[in-house]
Amino acid sequence: MLVVMDVSATPQQIEQVVKVIESRGCTARPIPGGDRVSIGVLNNRGPVDASMFIGLPGVKDAVPITKPYKLVSRETKAGDTLIQVGEVTIGNGHLTIIAGPCAIESETQAITIAGYVKKAGAHLFRGGAFKPRTSPYSFQGLGEEGLKILAKVRERTGMPVVTEVMDFPTFDQVEHYSDVLQIGTRNMQNFSLLKRAGESYRPILLKRGMAATIEEWLMAAEYIMAQGNHQVILCERGVRTFVHHSRNTLDLSAVPVVRKESHLPIIVDPSHAAGRRDQVLPLSRAAVAANAHGLMVEVHHQPEKALSDGAQSLYPDQFDILCRQVTDIFAVSGGQEPF
Amino acid sequence: MLVVMDVSATPQQIEQVVKVIESRGCTARPIPGGDRVSIGVLNNRGPVDASMFIGLPGVKDAVPITKPYKLVSRETKAGDTLIQVGEVTIGNGHLTIIAGPCAIESETQAITIAGYVKKAGAHLFRGGAFKPRTSPYSFQGLGEEGLKILAKVRERTGMPVVTEVMDFPTFDQVEHYSDVLQIGTRNMQNFSLLKRAGESYRPILLKRGMAATIEEWLMAAEYIMAQGNHQVILCERGVRTFVHHSRNTLDLSAVPVVRKESHLPIIVDPSHAAGRRDQVLPLSRAAVAANAHGLMVEVHHQPEKALSDGAQSLYPDQFDILCRQVTDIFAVSGGQEPF
Amino acid sequence: MLVVMDVSATPQQIEQVVKVIESRGCTARPIPGGDRVSIGVLNNRGPVDASMFIGLPGVKDAVPITKPYKLVSRETKAGDTLIQVGEVTIGNGHLTIIAGPCAIESETQAITIAGYVKKAGAHLFRGGAFKPRTSPYSFQGLGEEGLKILAKVRERTGMPVVTEVMDFPTFDQVEHYSDVLQIGTRNMQNFSLLKRAGESYRPILLKRGMAATIEEWLMAAEYIMAQGNHQVILCERGVRTFVHHSRNTLDLSAVPVVRKESHLPIIVDPSHAAGRRDQVLPLSRAAVAANAHGLMVEVHHQPEKALSDGAQSLYPDQFDILCRQVTDIFAVSGGQEPF
Amino acid sequence: MLVVMDVSATPQQIEQVVKVIESRGCTARPIPGGDRVSIGVLNNRGPVDASMFIGLPGVKDAVPITKPYKLVSRETKAGDTLIQVGEVTIGNGHLTIIAGPCAIESETQAITIAGYVKKAGAHLFRGGAFKPRTSPYSFQGLGEEGLKILAKVRERTGMPVVTEVMDFPTFDQVEHYSDVLQIGTRNMQNFSLLKRAGESYRPILLKRGMAATIEEWLMAAEYIMAQGNHQVILCERGVRTFVHHSRNTLDLSAVPVVRKESHLPIIVDPSHAAGRRDQVLPLSRAAVAANAHGLMVEVHHQPEKALSDGAQSLYPDQFDILCRQVTDIFAVSGGQEPF
Repeated sequence: MLVVMDVSATPQQIEQVVKVIESRGCTARPIPGGDRVSIGVLNNRGPVDASMFIGLPGVKDAVPITKPYKLVSRETKAGDTLIQVGEVTIGNGHLTIIAGPCAIESETQAITIAGYVKKAGAHLFRGGAFKPRTSPYSFQGLGEEGLKILAKVRERTGMPVVTEVMDFPTFDQVEHYSDVLQIGTRNMQNFSLLKRAGESYRPILLKRGMAATIEEWLMAAEYIMAQGNHQVILCERGVRTFVHHSRNTLDLSAVPVVRKESHLPIIVDPSHAAGRRDQVLPLSRAAVAANAHGLMVEVHHQPEKALSDGAQSLYPDQFDILCRQVTDIFAVSGGQEPF
Repeated sequence: MLVVMDVSATPQQIEQVVKVIESRGCTARPIPGGDRVSIGVLNNRGPVDASMFIGLPGVKDAVPITKPYKLVSRETKAGDTLIQVGEVTIGNGHLTIIAGPCAIESETQAITIAGYVKKAGAHLFRGGAFKPRTSPYSFQGLGEEGLKILAKVRERTGMPVVTEVMDFPTFDQVEHYSDVLQIGTRNMQNFSLLKRAGESYRPILLKRGMAATIEEWLMAAEYIMAQGNHQVILCERGVRTFVHHSRNTLDLSAVPVVRKESHLPIIVDPSHAAGRRDQVLPLSRAAVAANAHGLMVEVHHQPEKALSDGAQSLYPDQFDILCRQVTDIFAVSGGQEPF
Repeated sequence: MLVVMDVSATPQQIEQVVKVIESRGCTARPIPGGDRVSIGVLNNRGPVDASMFIGLPGVKDAVPITKPYKLVSRETKAGDTLIQVGEVTIGNGHLTIIAGPCAIESETQAITIAGYVKKAGAHLFRGGAFKPRTSPYSFQGLGEEGLKILAKVRERTGMPVVTEVMDFPTFDQVEHYSDVLQIGTRNMQNFSLLKRAGESYRPILLKRGMAATIEEWLMAAEYIMAQGNHQVILCERGVRTFVHHSRNTLDLSAVPVVRKESHLPIIVDPSHAAGRRDQVLPLSRAAVAANAHGLMVEVHHQPEKALSDGAQSLYPDQFDILCRQVTDIFAVSGGQEPF
Repeated sequence: MLVVMDVSATPQQIEQVVKVIESRGCTARPIPGGDRVSIGVLNNRGPVDASMFIGLPGVKDAVPITKPYKLVSRETKAGDTLIQVGEVTIGNGHLTIIAGPCAIESETQAITIAGYVKKAGAHLFRGGAFKPRTSPYSFQGLGEEGLKILAKVRERTGMPVVTEVMDFPTFDQVEHYSDVLQIGTRNMQNFSLLKRAGESYRPILLKRGMAATIEEWLMAAEYIMAQGNHQVILCERGVRTFVHHSRNTLDLSAVPVVRKESHLPIIVDPSHAAGRRDQVLPLSRAAVAANAHGLMVEVHHQPEKALSDGAQSLYPDQFDILCRQVTDIFAVSGGQEPF
């Protein structure tokens, strides 16, 4: 934190800021400048809140300098985290493809789609049992029945499964059936859910909030890790902007930034970013080209009959092309930046 | 919903769209235009999903026409909803001021601040017992102890109290102690929490999500009302934009839009929008001038020592000025638009 | 500027940053911290570019500390700038209302509307002669004929006139006819136009760019002032966000921020922010309540026949109510913050 | 355009809307629905303005259905536009790389960098002679001297050159020296400049405005084409969002959308999107993977000494890697979507 004083700040005002800093157990280092004085806040243990200073007389601004996250930071752990799900490894050097329908609609539907995506090259199967829907009148998912279908898919195909967990009352249930637990974009700062996830024995796939900064996203991962669960996979899925030709705006610069700041793996969900089938293939290639560790893609064999998100679901033969193209691109970028 | 076909769409493609519409129990009405055909979707009971159409061959776009909300809509209930909390009425014709610290820190702190804000003219007291914090290492609130302090404030001052409820495990507790339950911006689409709130006997103060459209916000209220609780107070608190001179950008056009679309009362939280004390007074006046039904303002007698959000908390004498100014402005605008 | 080094930065890397700073004629002040070293950049004359540092080895970030503007800053000139246009004074202590149609369509239309708005209390008349339109096929304004009509309005009513200037070839013409020259939101960073405006003898009404930060906006004013024209009126007109219930999102916290940072007057255009008639009155009241120095409002006696922006134009009797309400609100807020 | 009436709209109000539609020479087609009436607007020649309807009594909303652009649309011209610049072809089937420094600083600097980028595989050379800078006190470019240096680069290397044109007074000059004229993000809706560009004999590289929708961007291209110049290259360079880990947020879904809507070529500028060197390579690969027709990349042999934008400039050996990687990726995606 750097506290910037007004040009006209008095020595008494500077002294007061120093006292506030020291009262919090930090070290204050005044830096006389050409025009004005700034005061560095050093040796802070936890996060320092700009709001302690911004209202004080003579203070112009308080600028955060260091990042508030610890456990997620590459400064704490230099080597990449690899996450093992059954026989699948997620993280640096691997390209992991997760695919399946938006929602589990029936056993036949799930098994059919799982067959297609496995054949095309997917490593994990996804499908929603509990669905967060904007409208209370929309299909809300099959619930536990959906979880049981997921378990059957795993049994039949050998693919580990990923599904979303939405709340406390159903957490144990989802944890029991699913190999990876997804926390959705709307729950990224549901801190109670994050804490419960931090006590889970399952890897957590943490989607970025639709208006979250990378710092807030990494702090959400920090909540999980602070409870002891270090198996966190980050998932970029687009952010909300003024743009409306896609459902969200996929923020691919998040990939190099997260890979630099953190040791955790980061995958990309092009389907929710796009919201339209015809953007999914180019965005998938782009995500792998940007060195994401994997993709999560929606696939449906009858998207026009899907109970949710049909518009963004690929047909199986389209997903087949996708798998081949992203594999070739992964071979080019190698998954590692040369500089 | 209006399905817009490509200029080059074939009769077969149009026919397929008609079939999909009818398979959902709706009526299809093709509208031949100058250049292209559009197809109206009529007599839908629930929301119609654009995604059913967007991926079909020959379809250029699917444009939603009607709003998906029912119970919150003024088309369903023309008269304004008034919400009674003790002796305080919230809604059309009333200006309700809610004030207090960001977080309850101690009994002395709460009672002191409550005394100040009551004297200045506040109708309800606010204070956080369970605090959603970006960092797991920040002060998370006093929990049940905080709730008990809130109860004492009510006992001493007669003011009803408002506090945030964050999750299932603590819902009953918060419901027991607090007169109004606040659902925070980060939980606006925590649908499980919304459903539980819909079963509560307490009025719900529903903050707008920091990147929520008004439609999504009203649909969140619809979740609560669909469970039977019709006592919902909406609270605009700023949205996330590229702007960084305030913590969020207060969206005051939401006030006339919500008042037109819905019968529910809408108040404004200028403190979280601003994030800085010196913007709170002008934004408070502006909110009342825009015909909000009330304000929720953070006040602290020692903001430089506050455990959270001190920078945006007003001093008691500043809050005093605020109450007088907004009362005068409410007298001008009358709380009702002349056109 | 504060250059923040990596935790693992070497003394050589720190030395290199110091050298780069000194090679630009500035003073480098290394600040050893608990974890890492930061280096302050002092005694810079002009703006220091973060890009000089961000790419260097061992550098984690470069954080701007001081503001780049000089002439617009209240640190340079403490007292409020008042701008005189005929008998009208714009700035602190005054509430100036500018009103008229979006575009000048005919002499009859302009004179008719001018009569209405003058009677209601407007101080200046506005109307576009050269119109920036999104489509090349839309009405582009009457050009010089429109300017001549504006001159007649001034002659008949005594009201000074405001109109937009779009480019070099027509600058002299507009400057000749109009009392105040408006630079539109799309030209806020048309630096050539700003420089020409800086050589003008007319006051410039500078609209905020639809995605401009306050810093960029003040820097645009700085371009004008740096050429010698110190008569700049700033105009907030809404910014582009994800919100779509209004054409733009009116950013009223810009008013207190600009009033604190700069001595220049700031007015608000609620019509372009709203884009819909029914939001204009509440946003106008809100803008005055936030202590804007004035309003610019679109009025048309036959908005359903207007050649542009009819949807946001008030009827004359609505504008009449607006003038009375904002005058009453101005009396409450007094145009000056008490703290 | 579809005009949506209130549920309670009267037959008289519907009749009035029909009359307004017909008074503009269009056909009105009322569509009685389950709840409410909507009215289609057909046979419009130019763009229909929603503002004609939104303010009318009984009207709830007016929803645009068809796109306002003509000449840029693939519905007007189905085949891809190819643009020839010397021996370089830009458009479908080709991957064009434009590279060079942000600003021309000296003949030595330009020639040196040109040598590097040509060897690595660039097809065109870029460099600013007239620079739009946020601050009036920053380096504004060498002006005509810079143009002459660009001419020398072309002479020496055989590469055609691209440079920005900022205004009328210097248009002829830039047009004389440069093979392609760039219109920058801040001038995307400088309509006077667009019209002048429409009269030019040079291809125009039109950058997307930093807060422009694709529709506005294509309408800007329409301005150029409507004057007779059909050689327009679109350039995505990132949009302004709440995200701050990159200078702008690169919107790669713009690539498939533009390619579907328009026949014009679209390239991507990853340097201005990123603003930081370490994001340029991943974003470049991503852009080509998304099927952009080319890239425009900043390269400098001594970025730490660059007079502008050094932080985002690649070193020559980094650019060399970039060229090799994107060429390999282009071979995978083939520049054409399989579906």
